[in-house]
Amino acid sequence: MNEGRTGVWFVGARGSVATTATVGLAALAEGIARPVGLVTAGSAFDGVPLPDFDDFVVGGHDVDETPLVERARRLATGGMIPAATVEAVAHRLDAADAEIRLVPRTARGSQRREIGLRADDIRSFRERHGLRRVVVIDVASTEPLPADRPEFHDHDALVAALAQDGVELLPSSTLSALAAVTGAGAPYACFTPSISLGIPALHAVAADAGVPIAGQDGKTGETLLRTVLAPMFSSRGMRVLSWAGANLLGGGDGATLADPAAVESKLASKNRGLHDLLGHDVVTPLHIDNVPDLGDVKTAWDHVHAEGFLDTRITLQTTWTAYDSTLAAPLVIDLARLLTLADQAGLSGPIAELGYFFKDPWGSEEHAFARQADELVSWALRTAVRRTTAQVA
Amino acid sequence: MNEGRTGVWFVGARGSVATTATVGLAALAEGIARPVGLVTAGSAFDGVPLPDFDDFVVGGHDVDETPLVERARRLATGGMIPAATVEAVAHRLDAADAEIRLVPRTARGSQRREIGLRADDIRSFRERHGLRRVVVIDVASTEPLPADRPEFHDHDALVAALAQDGVELLPSSTLSALAAVTGAGAPYACFTPSISLGIPALHAVAADAGVPIAGQDGKTGETLLRTVLAPMFSSRGMRVLSWAGANLLGGGDGATLADPAAVESKLASKNRGLHDLLGHDVVTPLHIDNVPDLGDVKTAWDHVHAEGFLDTRITLQTTWTAYDSTLAAPLVIDLARLLTLADQAGLSGPIAELGYFFKDPWGSEEHAFARQADELVSWALRTAVRRTTAQVA
Amino acid sequence: MNEGRTGVWFVGARGSVATTATVGLAALAEGIARPVGLVTAGSAFDGVPLPDFDDFVVGGHDVDETPLVERARRLATGGMIPAATVEAVAHRLDAADAEIRLVPRTARGSQRREIGLRADDIRSFRERHGLRRVVVIDVASTEPLPADRPEFHDHDALVAALAQDGVELLPSSTLSALAAVTGAGAPYACFTPSISLGIPALHAVAADAGVPIAGQDGKTGETLLRTVLAPMFSSRGMRVLSWAGANLLGGGDGATLADPAAVESKLASKNRGLHDLLGHDVVTPLHIDNVPDLGDVKTAWDHVHAEGFLDTRITLQTTWTAYDSTLAAPLVIDLARLLTLADQAGLSGPIAELGYFFKDPWGSEEHAFARQADELVSWALRTAVRRTTAQVA
Amino acid sequence: MNEGRTGVWFVGARGSVATTATVGLAALAEGIARPVGLVTAGSAFDGVPLPDFDDFVVGGHDVDETPLVERARRLATGGMIPAATVEAVAHRLDAADAEIRLVPRTARGSQRREIGLRADDIRSFRERHGLRRVVVIDVASTEPLPADRPEFHDHDALVAALAQDGVELLPSSTLSALAAVTGAGAPYACFTPSISLGIPALHAVAADAGVPIAGQDGKTGETLLRTVLAPMFSSRGMRVLSWAGANLLGGGDGATLADPAAVESKLASKNRGLHDLLGHDVVTPLHIDNVPDLGDVKTAWDHVHAEGFLDTRITLQTTWTAYDSTLAAPLVIDLARLLTLADQAGLSGPIAELGYFFKDPWGSEEHAFARQADELVSWALRTAVRRTTAQVA
Ligand SMILES: NC(=O)c1ccc[n+]([C@@H]2O[C@H](COP(=O)([O-])OP(=O)(O)OC[C@H]3O[C@@H](n4cnc5c(N)ncnc54)[C@H](O)[C@@H]3O)[C@@H](O)[C@H]2O)c1
Ligand SMILES: NC(=O)c1ccc[n+]([C@@H]2O[C@H](COP(=O)([O-])OP(=O)(O)OC[C@H]3O[C@@H](n4cnc5c(N)ncnc54)[C@H](O)[C@@H]3O)[C@@H](O)[C@H]2O)c1
Ligand SMILES: NC(=O)c1ccc[n+]([C@@H]2O[C@H](COP(=O)([O-])OP(=O)(O)OC[C@H]3O[C@@H](n4cnc5c(N)ncnc54)[C@H](O)[C@@H]3O)[C@@H](O)[C@H]2O)c1
Ligand SMILES: NC(=O)c1ccc[n+]([C@@H]2O[C@H](COP(=O)([O-])OP(=O)(O)OC[C@H]3O[C@@H](n4cnc5c(N)ncnc54)[C@H](O)[C@@H]3O)[C@@H](O)[C@H]2O)c1
Ligand code: NA
Ligand code: NA
Repeated sequence: MNEGRTGVWFVGARGSVATTATVGLAALAEGIARPVGLVTAGSAFDGVPLPDFDDFVVGGHDVDETPLVERARRLATGGMIPAATVEAVAHRLDAADAEIRLVPRTARGSQRREIGLRADDIRSFRERHGLRRVVVIDVASTEPLPADRPEFHDHDALVAALAQDGVELLPSSTLSALAAVTGAGAPYACFTPSISLGIPALHAVAADAGVPIAGQDGKTGETLLRTVLAPMFSSRGMRVLSWAGANLLGGGDGATLADPAAVESKLASKNRGLHDLLGHDVVTPLHIDNVPDLGDVKTAWDHVHAEGFLDTRITLQTTWTAYDSTLAAPLVIDLARLLTLADQAGLSGPIAELGYFFKDPWGSEEHAFARQADELVSWALRTAVRRTTAQVA
Repeated sequence: MNEGRTGVWFVGARGSVATTATVGLAALAEGIARPVGLVTAGSAFDGVPLPDFDDFVVGGHDVDETPLVERARRLATGGMIPAATVEAVAHRLDAADAEIRLVPRTARGSQRREIGLRADDIRSFRERHGLRRVVVIDVASTEPLPADRPEFHDHDALVAALAQDGVELLPSSTLSALAAVTGAGAPYACFTPSISLGIPALHAVAADAGVPIAGQDGKTGETLLRTVLAPMFSSRGMRVLSWAGANLLGGGDGATLADPAAVESKLASKNRGLHDLLGHDVVTPLHIDNVPDLGDVKTAWDHVHAEGFLDTRITLQTTWTAYDSTLAAPLVIDLARLLTLADQAGLSGPIAELGYFFKDPWGSEEHAFARQADELVSWALRTAVRRTTAQVA
Repeated sequence: MNEGRTGVWFVGARGSVATTATVGLAALAEGIARPVGLVTAGSAFDGVPLPDFDDFVVGGHDVDETPLVERARRLATGGMIPAATVEAVAHRLDAADAEIRLVPRTARGSQRREIGLRADDIRSFRERHGLRRVVVIDVASTEPLPADRPEFHDHDALVAALAQDGVELLPSSTLSALAAVTGAGAPYACFTPSISLGIPALHAVAADAGVPIAGQDGKTGETLLRTVLAPMFSSRGMRVLSWAGANLLGGGDGATLADPAAVESKLASKNRGLHDLLGHDVVTPLHIDNVPDLGDVKTAWDHVHAEGFLDTRITLQTTWTAYDSTLAAPLVIDLARLLTLADQAGLSGPIAELGYFFKDPWGSEEHAFARQADELVSWALRTAVRRTTAQVA
Repeated sequence: MNEGRTGVWFVGARGSVATTATVGLAALAEGIARPVGLVTAGSAFDGVPLPDFDDFVVGGHDVDETPLVERARRLATGGMIPAATVEAVAHRLDAADAEIRLVPRTARGSQRREIGLRADDIRSFRERHGLRRVVVIDVASTEPLPADRPEFHDHDALVAALAQDGVELLPSSTLSALAAVTGAGAPYACFTPSISLGIPALHAVAADAGVPIAGQDGKTGETLLRTVLAPMFSSRGMRVLSWAGANLLGGGDGATLADPAAVESKLASKNRGLHDLLGHDVVTPLHIDNVPDLGDVKTAWDHVHAEGFLDTRITLQTTWTAYDSTLAAPLVIDLARLLTLADQAGLSGPIAELGYFFKDPWGSEEHAFARQADELVSWALRTAVRRTTAQVA
């Protein structure tokens, strides 16, 4: 690709996922890491024109000021990423750190103004580096779901409220999404379960975005497994009666999810696919526990009970153990590459086929993983062709 | 369907799988069981013309003389099937029992003669009940793989040897398969890992069979799970390094597999798909242990180790627990229905799409379960159309 | 023993545990069950004079009217106990059923009167059958812990309140315990986590009871395992950092514990021993989920994270699966036998060594299972000697 | 202790266990590690006079020449021990490395001469450092069990054969044990399942050794767990029917145990305690698989099936995951300390109470862990008293 460089703008740029993605992109660019865990590095994507790892420039927003290299070293101490890799790319981390802008916990003036300021950050990042485009990816802490408000259902009322100083209507994820999509005209992906563009009055904004968007809530561990396994039970006619789950994790995400309000949006997002794939009478108790001593290693135990032929009892237990952010980080890079492709091909609005990456796919009802995988690949091939046409035209 | 009744002829008709299938077919016919665990009862098969459960007549071969109802009662005592169901269908079990013919452990005269006698049993069953067709399904005990022999590679030498009295060349599974396919012209499925038609000199027989055939080794538990999960790792670019497995089971199959010679064919069959789906450098230690006290409940533990992004360690453990024969029995019924359809449509030779049911699919290299499931459904729809055309023509 | 017969009075006599214990006692008396799962049948108790299984007469209280044989049949259908056993002892179940008295959900008059009426039931059972003693065992549904009240800390105020009509001060478990201990002078065991005699103003009653008492909350599954495993970590100097648990169960107990108020007393009881054995900085998230489709089969998953030498990570996962009431029932029989022995030996007040059976041992701080086991055996031997002396004297 | 320094002589001094123990001792001596995972650091041992960590000087035998610091760095890379710790104690590792003597794979001259040469190494180490005593601990690779030989049963014949050049009668573990016990008069512990002093003609040597000895085969993971859990089932009268196990490991020990001859001695040793604790009709299939990609992390899965009351099925699964050598290393240090104490107190021959540390305890039939733990502590207290008396006398 001699298309010029692409920006990635992380909302939550100093969090575990963003830090791991930034370290990873740097290590890939330096040729000291292999693209293991990346979907777009698979042979199915051979010939699809995607940005090289070295084509990316990283920047972002965060509420925290710890330098990126410091965050990366903590992750290395916790065992998530190799310490040697962090040191080898420290200069690139410093460069990215210089592109991170603080966002305040409360809006600067009206929320419209706050959106504008965030959009300015993105735009000036684009200009400063002469980038063709900036892909914005939200990997900030999971927010509590906001209580419903009349303005959430009335676009005009919403617009009016946004203009008023001191009115705290929209949560931060929505402000960031609007800054990206309407403010800076940037392709956008929501990797978290926060509400983002899910406010009814904004559905039109999402649908008519002049840019491609994708969401929501990265499907990396337990939910990935569930959407792989559930179709097996269905295809074989086994009737799943219950699917119980326990998640243990520490780290930043663990601490956030220890808050019952924050965990609620996560739990809802995690169970949605299951109900969809299996029907609605399935019993699905699910817990997420903050276990600080586990650090960033997440352990998920699932217990499935299905009825088989002649009232027989079938049980399946799964225990999945992994560093959560190293699962997420390569997908975030995949998304940056694929949204770049989509944008080059002139696509806009929710890209259903990118639902492959998410617990709660925008623009699609498909949760079955294998089917999503096939659709993603064929979408990439189609879009590659369309991109060529778009560029020629 | 007003097509007349269909016969199902079980090789190993008094084993756990056949007994469970016979009880199940009877209970479905009586309307006292629901078609849970049957693939062909799923909504994806709506409109595909398949025999009704009550259209089937059951017979078979075995080396054992225990009455079927007796075998069924033992399975009920072991917890596999409900005792009440067995009693409610006892009359149907007695009827099936009357259609079971003993086969000897050594051939009666030459092996050609033995093949002929077995074929006679199948033909006379067909005539006695005025059946349109008899589907033969091998669910007999797993045989040791036979040592290689020159005749296995030379069709003429094989034919000559078969004609000689007292020459024990082919194992019983092959005799039964030939009795079905070449002797009685019956559609045939091999649900076991025994060699059956896998002898090189018989490849042409399999390919040119005038009837549809399907195999081999039912994919019901651990292997099913593996072919569901392995594609997930591949799609996500995670590099599986090892996939270890332990199987604990009692019952008849447990006792058979306690024999190291018999277990060898099973282990080979179980690991084949995994290597195919993941590549050949994966370490795959696998054990099957006979644990008599577990009875027919099989427990399989798998431990998967994969490498993720930035050298991260990902592990997945699965524990699957089920009554093995209630997993197998509905698939056996599915096969009887689908081979009937295939035969009505005029298909012959190995049906690649029925590979969905097997660890070691005949006529196909596809092991990925979700893809197999999609192919099976579209094959059934195509074949349904073809059948109508065939019948009109 | 030619000591005359002994009564067992179950509070919650129609529940799963009591029904299983009653079926079991009957089957043992008839010689159609072996004493598997009973502690007192072990060779360590050889020579300790305990009532024979046929020496027991069963009665009890419940709020439910379903006949015992009906409850037993339901348990058989659910797979917990063999149907043939239930039918073989149906006449004994009918006899026990005739000895069950209904208790109302609210007191009949004052709570003092209610205590008296319950005590009358026990006494008249004793007289009707000419029993030497009646052991009362509470196996009723787990109650929510009552909110604190001034009377709970002031014995005189409590006595005064009990005398007043319509005042609902004490929960039912306490009324039953007082009926047994102070009303009927009966040895008493509390197998549930309900508050029972745990009200501060009643501590003296418990300590000065003229009869032996034992409690509380049967230690049968996950907690048993924990108190077996925790001492291993301590002895080996491994520092347990977290011990997380998930419990899945259906049945009556599952439904009760679906109530967040009821589950609270259970969870507290379950975690107490762990903190005691390991120290107080251990993170111990714990959940109990009602999963109706699992019926009476309880599955408990635990995840232990310990620190070893040189900051090494040690993890242990356990999955325990069992029919909960068949774990509890033999212990209930053990308690009836051992409290009989204790009473014969003239012991009174909380028997610390019976803490072996409980999550929350009365009169003891010892939770380590192996140590409890040794103490129980030596107590039984000592008490056997003391009983002989007591009887001679 | 102002008793002078103590030597620890590791047979297999460059292996994982010895390297980890050497790093650990050094880190404890420097005060940069806490004594987590050490039994003798527990409060139960308060007041027992044991050598300080800084009192130890390390030397040993090995067949390999890789410098110790190199081996330690590899373990750090594999995640077993912290890299920073290795670097901080590198000078101490170099010092220990200078005290390691090579042993050849075949005897230098007669085996008697080989024993003498090994004993010389130990003696000269003692003298060079002015040590009061040297404790020898065998942590070399597991050997295949030698085929039986007439000389193994006839002490005179054995002595005669040892004197002959070129006769390879005894395996290396026995040569090392004799070098320690009879040659150098050094307290000795056998941490491996190799035959060592287990040759019948040497039983008297073991019994009459003038020094305390202890063995055999460190009980660190799966077997530890089994001897903790089995007594629970016994005490509760649950009848264990089968106990199956699967072990996955890489590293040096994994490679050694991939040899079916070597693994045999390990498997026998692992199952012995279980049969002893539960009785002999238990089905105990057990596998150890070499899975190189797992490195030094060992994962053991066990599946226990027990019968409970009224024929009920109880299952327990355990999955234990740990770096094997960090489990072993602190125990090796414990043994060095406790054998020093035993020697100071004038004890000799097999110390039954040190059976606590081993799968196959010398001089004891006790396998139940909790009982072993109690016996160890009381032995240590008794021996402390005896040591004082011995020193005074
Ligand atoms: N496998 C995975 O890791 C995975 C999967 C799915 C979803 N997610 C989601 O990704 C998100 C990030 O996870 P993480 O582990 O990196 O969490 P983290 O706590 O390590 O990082 C979150 C970062 O967001 C920052 N932040 C908080 N509020 C912000 C705001 N208003 N604006 C900008 N930045 C803000 C925090 O300061 C922090 O640096 C979470 O929402 C998580 O649920 C992660
Ligand atoms: N989930 C499953 O149960 C499953 C899955 C895949 C494959 N299979 C295969 O299905 C087969 C049957 O399993 P099962 O559990 O019913 O075993 P089983 O031992 O209960 O039954 C086997 C039956 O075959 C009979 N038999 C033995 N030799 C025969 C011969 N030469 N001719 C005819 N009958 C003969 C035996 O007498 C017995 O009745 C096995 O080969 C097994 O490996 C089963
Ligand atoms: N392994 C075990 O089963 C186990 C272990 C520890 C504790 N327990 C405790 O044992 C108790 C019984 O368990 P279960 O499974 O039999 O429950 P269950 O729900 O089957 O039975 C409880 C019985 O108590 C009756 N009951 C309710 N309120 C009552 C009252 N006020 N007076 C008298 N009877 C009343 C109910 O009608 C029911 O018959 C529970 O409290 C449970 O927590 C059980
Ligand atoms: N948890 C545990 O690690 C554990 C538990 C019980 C027993 N063990 C036993 O401890 C021993 C060491 O385990 P490891 O993981 O350190 O193995 P390892 O392979 O890392 O080390 C073994 C060392 O012994 C050396 N060696 C081989 N033959 C020798 C000989 N004849 N004389 C002297 N040295 C020799 C090797 O060169 C190597 O350095 C093994 O026998 C193992 O079975 C270990
Ligand atoms: Na194939
Ligand atoms: Na011994």
